[in-house]
Amino acid sequence: MWYETKLTKLLKIKRPIIQAGMAGGPTTPELIATVSNCGGLGTLGAGYMGPEEIKGAIQRIKQLTDQPYAVNLFIPETTTIEESKIIKMTDTLKGFYEKLGIEQLSLQDEWGPNFEKQIEVIIEESVPVFSFTFGILETEWINRLRANGTIVIGTATTVEEALQLEKMNVDAIVAQGSEAGGHRGTFSGAAEDAMIGTMALVPQMVDAVHIPVIAAGGIMDGRGLIASISLGASAVQMGTAFLPTLESGANPLYKKAIIQATEAATTVTTKFSGKAARGLKNEFIDRLKDVPVSEVPIYPVQNALTQPLRKEAAKQEKSEWMSMWAGQGLRLTEGIGAKQIIDRIMEEANATLLRLTKKG
Amino acid sequence: MWYETKLTKLLKIKRPIIQAGMAGGPTTPELIATVSNCGGLGTLGAGYMGPEEIKGAIQRIKQLTDQPYAVNLFIPETTTIEESKIIKMTDTLKGFYEKLGIEQLSLQDEWGPNFEKQIEVIIEESVPVFSFTFGILETEWINRLRANGTIVIGTATTVEEALQLEKMNVDAIVAQGSEAGGHRGTFSGAAEDAMIGTMALVPQMVDAVHIPVIAAGGIMDGRGLIASISLGASAVQMGTAFLPTLESGANPLYKKAIIQATEAATTVTTKFSGKAARGLKNEFIDRLKDVPVSEVPIYPVQNALTQPLRKEAAKQEKSEWMSMWAGQGLRLTEGIGAKQIIDRIMEEANATLLRLTKKG
Repeated sequence: MWYETKLTKLLKIKRPIIQAGMAGGPTTPELIATVSNCGGLGTLGAGYMGPEEIKGAIQRIKQLTDQPYAVNLFIPETTTIEESKIIKMTDTLKGFYEKLGIEQLSLQDEWGPNFEKQIEVIIEESVPVFSFTFGILETEWINRLRANGTIVIGTATTVEEALQLEKMNVDAIVAQGSEAGGHRGTFSGAAEDAMIGTMALVPQMVDAVHIPVIAAGGIMDGRGLIASISLGASAVQMGTAFLPTLESGANPLYKKAIIQATEAATTVTTKFSGKAARGLKNEFIDRLKDVPVSEVPIYPVQNALTQPLRKEAAKQEKSEWMSMWAGQGLRLTEGIGAKQIIDRIMEEANATLLRLTKKG
Repeated sequence: MWYETKLTKLLKIKRPIIQAGMAGGPTTPELIATVSNCGGLGTLGAGYMGPEEIKGAIQRIKQLTDQPYAVNLFIPETTTIEESKIIKMTDTLKGFYEKLGIEQLSLQDEWGPNFEKQIEVIIEESVPVFSFTFGILETEWINRLRANGTIVIGTATTVEEALQLEKMNVDAIVAQGSEAGGHRGTFSGAAEDAMIGTMALVPQMVDAVHIPVIAAGGIMDGRGLIASISLGASAVQMGTAFLPTLESGANPLYKKAIIQATEAATTVTTKFSGKAARGLKNEFIDRLKDVPVSEVPIYPVQNALTQPLRKEAAKQEKSEWMSMWAGQGLRLTEGIGAKQIIDRIMEEANATLLRLTKKG
């Protein structure tokens, strides 16, 4: 059948639907387990989590499902921390913090979780599938993961990046189209030069590599699933569709904003985290729009500098200052259960195929 | 069959493939007639053409085919010509003109062809299909065209624009995704806020309007055709795939550049024409990248100011100064005949469907 591909066999899943590893809260063990129990692949977005937190989440997932699941991490860049940029940005953000009545972060030794400690947990816990974003995973890690029975999935925003990942011996590649919500996975060149729409990106990547390609970006329902498989993808990865589900851990204000928004409500900004990401336009992005990209501290520094602000804004129900990552398929979102979403996708996919093959 | 839709019946075409009305030379009567003779819909990109030139092209098309064809025009905006911007831009462009050894344009009374005279030709010649870009066509014109038996197609880059077009009583709407080459059809709001990928745009537009939607942007082959029909489109519009064909009137350097380019080779710029358009990155775009968008004279003024420069650059084989519109599906282009392209698309579409419906 069309939904049984080399990739679904490798991943041992029944339905070619991967729930994206959205970092920062949405991917609760309940969401992941529901998706995996429905025959899809749930993913823990663990990019911002410390090793103990990751371990706890994995153990909870294991209690909730005996099906395969994935964990997603961000590959750190080797970068120099520029103190002058940090001081300037701290000043830029001062007004937000004062209004919220909380303290700003001072200079840190560690700006984000330690990647090696994070990935050690993936190995210790024998996670079935590991996906990564933002770069190339060193061969040593890939070898250790594979020796441990873990399937490894990379993320590419151009064909060139996909070719680099294939050389590193990953098992499959997510083709992240420009429609996708959240962080752009671009690791080779500038993110603004790698905004290729899913319709164009997927077939070009499929032609260029010999391993399975997973379509991502703007895919919301059974029509998008059949469209992606038509383009040559072996599965789809969907984030925005799962964001407002009942099982998602996204803030209620964020869920509501997603459900109400339309296709043109998003923009790509580096101002929240230091890396380009697509999210709902709001006052925070607007107020920082004149800060040149070159003055924004690198990831994960900017992410750390805005994190207490975003967290407190959520507490004070100020969605205009929250980061609300979202893709472009926003009119197609609904606040229902994840199982209902997956069942509907499969039904609609089969109905789409029937429509395409109707005689007469 | 899947390729027979309400729209193909209305247009009286056998294959749901529309060749886009690329203005500025590529759409020769030979290309249009070849596409229409193969069962698709060829389109004359007449935006820059004067009424006599349009009439001549239509008469030539009629000699070459008895099948339906379309003519595409640009809807003019009511705009104020700002002389100070023109003087400043003339100065900015001076170096290019000096190097080419030709005179710059001085201030004009008419910066582009007269729209009313253009559209009168469409009515006089009883053109089967009229498509338009950049806005809303006044009801009076729509009524005259329809009374004359002409099918009217508008272009939208957001759902909101599609709803406006539907209210104007057009017969169908092109959903122009962000992957598309050439001018962005955006007429409601800023072009940069309406860069929605085809995968996300098509299903949202299909759900919102009651008339047929034509998918455009990044569609290059039979896989893209089936993907688009899956998303709910009634047909596809393809430009870049037809640009380097043998019948296309595009400059040989331009064709060669298209065939050699990859998916990340394009950018969206307003610097050639005053309106946002996607084309191959080159030196001209790069040298003008620091000119703020607000300082670029409006369309069609900027188009007129750069036109002699682009024309002479083509003569002197300086593709770095030519405008080479292109979409993001560039790895999938080939310099073959238009009939061969259409035959292949249909074969590959049927093969894709077979792959999707294979049992076992």
